[in-house]
Amino acid sequence: MNTSSPTPFVQRLHEAVDEKGAPVVVGLDPRPALFPPDLAPRAAAGEDVRRATARAIVRFNELILDAVHDIAVAVKPQAAFYERWGWPGIEALEQTMSMARERGLLVIADGKRNDIGSTASAYAEAWLGGPEGATPSGLEADGLTVNPYLGTDGLAPFAAACRERGKALFVLLRTSNPSGDELQALKVSETETVALRIGRLIASLNDGLPLVDGYGPVGAVVGATRPEEARSLRERLPGVMFLVPGFGAQGAGAAEAAAAFDERGRGVLVNSARGILYAFRTERPGEAGSGDRFAEAARRAARTMADQLQEALSKR
Amino acid sequence: MNTSSPTPFVQRLHEAVDEKGAPVVVGLDPRPALFPPDLAPRAAAGEDVRRATARAIVRFNELILDAVHDIAVAVKPQAAFYERWGWPGIEALEQTMSMARERGLLVIADGKRNDIGSTASAYAEAWLGGPEGATPSGLEADGLTVNPYLGTDGLAPFAAACRERGKALFVLLRTSNPSGDELQALKVSETETVALRIGRLIASLNDGLPLVDGYGPVGAVVGATRPEEARSLRERLPGVMFLVPGFGAQGAGAAEAAAAFDERGRGVLVNSARGILYAFRTERPGEAGSGDRFAEAARRAARTMADQLQEALSKR
Repeated sequence: MNTSSPTPFVQRLHEAVDEKGAPVVVGLDPRPALFPPDLAPRAAAGEDVRRATARAIVRFNELILDAVHDIAVAVKPQAAFYERWGWPGIEALEQTMSMARERGLLVIADGKRNDIGSTASAYAEAWLGGPEGATPSGLEADGLTVNPYLGTDGLAPFAAACRERGKALFVLLRTSNPSGDELQALKVSETETVALRIGRLIASLNDGLPLVDGYGPVGAVVGATRPEEARSLRERLPGVMFLVPGFGAQGAGAAEAAAAFDERGRGVLVNSARGILYAFRTERPGEAGSGDRFAEAARRAARTMADQLQEALSKR
Repeated sequence: MNTSSPTPFVQRLHEAVDEKGAPVVVGLDPRPALFPPDLAPRAAAGEDVRRATARAIVRFNELILDAVHDIAVAVKPQAAFYERWGWPGIEALEQTMSMARERGLLVIADGKRNDIGSTASAYAEAWLGGPEGATPSGLEADGLTVNPYLGTDGLAPFAAACRERGKALFVLLRTSNPSGDELQALKVSETETVALRIGRLIASLNDGLPLVDGYGPVGAVVGATRPEEARSLRERLPGVMFLVPGFGAQGAGAAEAAAAFDERGRGVLVNSARGILYAFRTERPGEAGSGDRFAEAARRAARTMADQLQEALSKR
């Protein structure tokens, strides 16, 4: 750590997009049951199966990272798939984040963390770094997803990390699951839904934080399968970056994702996990494959995704 | 694991309350900066400071558990304070949960986790156990706090663990922080706030799940500093257990917490963290203390809390 001003997330993101051509994010959601045989977890006699699984995850992620690092701008490891294996899984997450950084990728930890007061501060220190001189957690990412149910004071410690350490936040705003409407689509006034109100809270968190190309460090998670709504949210929240998950596997394509971009083709990160990691299984159903073939298929899928996004943007 | 029906959480809880007299939950939120000198983290030369910190946390928690295990019915470790130290912190959390279980305490993991689909399932497997034969995560608790922003399908995998493995859920409903109102108090109809609507969703998750003494395994987190609202929620949500944090440190006392109980004195778990763990610092401001003195003060504070809850209940 040093005392010079850190480079803001959005600046690093835009430099990467300018270099690589599209805001592709690869979701690192390791599912050992889907790994090819040569990468399957193998515990030595008497070894904790979790440790063998964690080792397999690191190896799998390394192959994927090598395959996509010059196409993707960021990776988004999903905390649940590492917590599933207890502390060895968390160690694998630390190693994964470190491998991604070594390859020049931004890291967005997908933890959807939320709490208040000193607990929210502890989460912020864990995932976005602590004050100068504090012991690093090992889990420090460039950005973190968070959940807004507790209101802005629960988000304040995370926003402070944006200001002080150049980090980014992505606040859950609108999700594409069938039950997402139960709360998010409720009307809270004649003209406003819960999601729109949360959008305003998110925008207010950017007040006073440095903008880069018009975008603040506090962004939103906006499901990709709701293009009309994404377009409308984009208009209403001009300074808010959108992290759009669900490309590919959750049914959304480039045209849907493109709805969330601004007229300059900025303001969005598009995430695909299954569609890239396990592309081999879609290409060659029934075949076992290998780590190398999974990596080649992942590279093709990431390339295709980048091309489709660029094409969708050029057509608008 | 075996195939016999697991004892439901509420049954285990009520047996413990009948034996110990009050539903005291001790929040295990370790803050090494507040530990007494003899328990402060001490890294050996060249050792990862996180490992030394994790060791200090386990030792601190063990002293607290020994001091309160015959007074409290459950402990509630707050995940953030363990994640703060990366994988060594998660290992300390596993050891803490294991020590609590060995002392006959229920364990409620306070993670406020939330996601959809297979990610929610991965969180549920991490914190509430997987299907028979699955590798244990090491983090399996008896109950887990979750966040409802994504709607009921995001909660379904956790509810399945209640049905299949006798676990409990506590869904964030109403929080006591100043910004809690921003979303939770919004009116979504003439008569209903967001919190009331979420309350109905929570109650619906108990449909079809086994009730014990009238309570289902899906409960709610209800901040203790809003007694009128707690009373009103209790009337509207008769089968929903309330986990009430904020006893002591967050300004609420026994009379406030008592508002959430039913007429039989059931339906509530009351949590205190700082007020118990660091009671010595309140009793003897300015003194350094020691592990033993911290433990004695924690025991007194837990005893006082139990007595105050019993008295407040007897007065109603």
